[in-house]
Amino acid sequence: MNEKIGDGDYLLLYLKPRKTYMVKAESAKTFHTHRGFIKFDDLIGKEFGSSVTSNLGATFFALKPTLQDYIMKSARQTQITYPKDIALIIMFSGIGPGSLVVEAGTGTGALTLALCFHVQPTGKVYSYEIREEFAAVAARNLQRAGVKDYAELKNKDITLGIDETNVDAVILDLATPWLVITHARAALKPCGTLVSFSPTIDQVVQTVEALAQNGFIAVETIECLMRGMQVERGKTRPQTLMTAHTGYVTFARKAIMDAQLSLAKRAVVDVGVTSEKL
Amino acid sequence: MNEKIGDGDYLLLYLKPRKTYMVKAESAKTFHTHRGFIKFDDLIGKEFGSSVTSNLGATFFALKPTLQDYIMKSARQTQITYPKDIALIIMFSGIGPGSLVVEAGTGTGALTLALCFHVQPTGKVYSYEIREEFAAVAARNLQRAGVKDYAELKNKDITLGIDETNVDAVILDLATPWLVITHARAALKPCGTLVSFSPTIDQVVQTVEALAQNGFIAVETIECLMRGMQVERGKTRPQTLMTAHTGYVTFARKAIMDAQLSLAKRAVVDVGVTSEKL
Amino acid sequence: MNEKIGDGDYLLLYLKPRKTYMVKAESAKTFHTHRGFIKFDDLIGKEFGSSVTSNLGATFFALKPTLQDYIMKSARQTQITYPKDIALIIMFSGIGPGSLVVEAGTGTGALTLALCFHVQPTGKVYSYEIREEFAAVAARNLQRAGVKDYAELKNKDITLGIDETNVDAVILDLATPWLVITHARAALKPCGTLVSFSPTIDQVVQTVEALAQNGFIAVETIECLMRGMQVERGKTRPQTLMTAHTGYVTFARKAIMDAQLSLAKRAVVDVGVTSEKL
Amino acid sequence: MNEKIGDGDYLLLYLKPRKTYMVKAESAKTFHTHRGFIKFDDLIGKEFGSSVTSNLGATFFALKPTLQDYIMKSARQTQITYPKDIALIIMFSGIGPGSLVVEAGTGTGALTLALCFHVQPTGKVYSYEIREEFAAVAARNLQRAGVKDYAELKNKDITLGIDETNVDAVILDLATPWLVITHARAALKPCGTLVSFSPTIDQVVQTVEALAQNGFIAVETIECLMRGMQVERGKTRPQTLMTAHTGYVTFARKAIMDAQLSLAKRAVVDVGVTSEKL
Repeated sequence: MNEKIGDGDYLLLYLKPRKTYMVKAESAKTFHTHRGFIKFDDLIGKEFGSSVTSNLGATFFALKPTLQDYIMKSARQTQITYPKDIALIIMFSGIGPGSLVVEAGTGTGALTLALCFHVQPTGKVYSYEIREEFAAVAARNLQRAGVKDYAELKNKDITLGIDETNVDAVILDLATPWLVITHARAALKPCGTLVSFSPTIDQVVQTVEALAQNGFIAVETIECLMRGMQVERGKTRPQTLMTAHTGYVTFARKAIMDAQLSLAKRAVVDVGVTSEKL
Repeated sequence: MNEKIGDGDYLLLYLKPRKTYMVKAESAKTFHTHRGFIKFDDLIGKEFGSSVTSNLGATFFALKPTLQDYIMKSARQTQITYPKDIALIIMFSGIGPGSLVVEAGTGTGALTLALCFHVQPTGKVYSYEIREEFAAVAARNLQRAGVKDYAELKNKDITLGIDETNVDAVILDLATPWLVITHARAALKPCGTLVSFSPTIDQVVQTVEALAQNGFIAVETIECLMRGMQVERGKTRPQTLMTAHTGYVTFARKAIMDAQLSLAKRAVVDVGVTSEKL
Repeated sequence: MNEKIGDGDYLLLYLKPRKTYMVKAESAKTFHTHRGFIKFDDLIGKEFGSSVTSNLGATFFALKPTLQDYIMKSARQTQITYPKDIALIIMFSGIGPGSLVVEAGTGTGALTLALCFHVQPTGKVYSYEIREEFAAVAARNLQRAGVKDYAELKNKDITLGIDETNVDAVILDLATPWLVITHARAALKPCGTLVSFSPTIDQVVQTVEALAQNGFIAVETIECLMRGMQVERGKTRPQTLMTAHTGYVTFARKAIMDAQLSLAKRAVVDVGVTSEKL
Repeated sequence: MNEKIGDGDYLLLYLKPRKTYMVKAESAKTFHTHRGFIKFDDLIGKEFGSSVTSNLGATFFALKPTLQDYIMKSARQTQITYPKDIALIIMFSGIGPGSLVVEAGTGTGALTLALCFHVQPTGKVYSYEIREEFAAVAARNLQRAGVKDYAELKNKDITLGIDETNVDAVILDLATPWLVITHARAALKPCGTLVSFSPTIDQVVQTVEALAQNGFIAVETIECLMRGMQVERGKTRPQTLMTAHTGYVTFARKAIMDAQLSLAKRAVVDVGVTSEKL
């Protein structure tokens, strides 16, 4: 990890909570904000985390962007999955360094870049997206976060099939996940994990049914509410507004089904919630 | 990843939601449950995800344990951090393959093994624990999950100091995190992240104040509520009971403070919630 | 309100949070608990709120039961609606002193007694219940709370029709509320309110559709999560466990529909959430 | 209840969720909106719930305002307590027809009018407010809702004392509730209830301590999260944004304390959460 800010590095300029800017440090250039402009030459060569003062006297800190910053600053052309949901998707999918992952749809690449980040250095993310127009912005976001080599962006309709086999996880964030379950089963290695993210309950019901019918077990669905706290001695309280809903996360494991094993019977048993995790 | 169940492999025997067992497959041995016993020889050599029937006719699936399974099955001598909180800690700390991490306290190693899993193959987790009696159980849990090489367990009081320097993240899950903030600053590389997990509001307030006084910026505190869904066509509803509270997660970045820069002034500005993430 | 404890009065004996007993003070009798017995003669004639010591030295306070206490201590043969939901039902139904209310099903009378309490002294609650076996326990619970005169318990199937007309509100807590919407419309005065409480999303969807088809407007559905706080200086935190879900509350107003007014058109407009209330 | 719209009646003109107007129907007058104007003469004499069409073709329904509507439309000069919190305050205070209630501060009268509505026809609400400028708006809001006779608005500082005695409940929604606890104890009848609403945790801690020190028992603190549902077959989901926090509600009962009874001892026991209610 490079500790000094170099020409061409991305920075998260931090003014205060809710006021941050993702910029590229370029020699001889300036960056303008409503609080004045700063010169990148004042930052290049200094340590990440250093401050710089604008011509109007405002102090900015030049942070090295983290995964989360890259996620949040991905272009918002589609509903990006929130960091909290990405965090849960990664936890429940069990992916990590070396994992082979199929994902759809790519969108602007927010989830893709999180997956790529965590499968480094020997894993790979095969990311499907039917809408051609997203390819460029997704590629740029992956490039900026330095994880483009771990992704293969595919302009394909995943509901028609998955090219890969023997992958560790299939992760779905698209409108009709239930149409992909059969393909996901074919692509997954035995015992592989499937994670699906959907905003509506109806999507969840259809997906859970498809999972049960296709020999997935340990099927669970959760939702996560995240609330910020305003912390100040004598005035501490939860924040006033919050995101009430992003989506439900469903996860499941691919089982090996014997001929004798009635899927219908298993389906009844497996749909439910493992309270242990909750 | 080995696809076939081998002699000595750990298995998650899955009967149904809420009924799973972490066992070691050992040739010529049996495993007894309230639903009968199974013979490991019926599983060894088969693919992970395969089923086996007990002498009483119950079907068990032999899943390959995921990170989450290892976390949940870590011995519960201390309050283990929940997977949802571990997921958020990993996301907000920005750690990944190659990260150098300091953690305290180790406890039974649930968070430690998640951190080790994600810093593979070139990172390292230095985990502090003052209570000597946890070392053995933590080591066993790390061993079982196959990530012991990425941890260095230290039977030391982290409130007295941190041996490491230039680490990417410091992660605190102990009773008095505010006593560690100065040491954490010294240990972190510029721009490094600090994450603290605490059950009570008073701990959070003291920690946030210590962070502001020690030149940390972008200080945020969140809590996360996770609720399971019972998904069944015509009967879908949230689960009846849930965990109401595990703890608050506070995260922050180490800034480089110029002599001229008043810490007191920054402290006022930085305490708050970046709504972008929420 | 009688301030002194009389022979025959109901008391809420309070030992500590989670340990309360609803008892009838009877002269010359005793009440036995795991912490010893008390004599009612030690309480009769004293003020409500007074304490009494058991033969084993435990202190009990003799509280005058509130509406909430009566609700909580209603026999639990059916899933009783929780005080928080009863509170919202009363608020959103707009009922108060003098209101005429139709309710179904009675169950053990927990919601019924809350409604009766609030329509005093000139209102009335017509409560339908198809299961005959609940009549006795509901009557006893209403009697105990002193509000029996404001209820008319009817052993009838409300899905077959409502006898009353021109009522202010219809309140439904039964398995198939959508089968009652047409009858509710006939029973309600113009502009009257309908409130329905259902545990599952599927019940809500069917009910909301029936409301839109029957000329109801301002249709809204909410759910309410209540979390207790453990308050103690230096250790304050939310409680560890909570009820994750009781049910969804849907409310609506009966509109007068002109012949020209397309119901279908209105339905589309009215389904949604008035954020003002939230 | 008058079913026909009369000259001078208040109406809630309902266009769609989130678009409602509280207006006074006045003969020969019109009401202008962004969707055109309506003539009140088209509504006067019709039933409440009837529709009227604007000159631009928009349909409005003339609803009879409910308690909740009056609450929501109270002038927003101060942070009004939300209907959900008012609902819980009424439930947990145990007030109803005939109750004598002390309240502070009045503010714009939103909570006051809910209390007045529910203590009809023989109860009374004594509402304290130190800021003189609120008296007029509170009086107007009570007048509009038709409950002004049940309130006595007092321009007094309740932290200096309460004039009334033997009241059923004291309800506090002000910045320093702990300064009123001693006065509240003096004003309450034995076994009376105290309810306090506060946005910050620090206020709650100070209030709970003051309650324990002043012989209150059954002290509990809760918070309530309300989330709207977007209900539409095939697309049902929770709403996207919600209010994350309004405040905590603390409630308690006044106990009669014997000389022998150590308050300090009771205090430890009584602080906590009665899980029964949750």
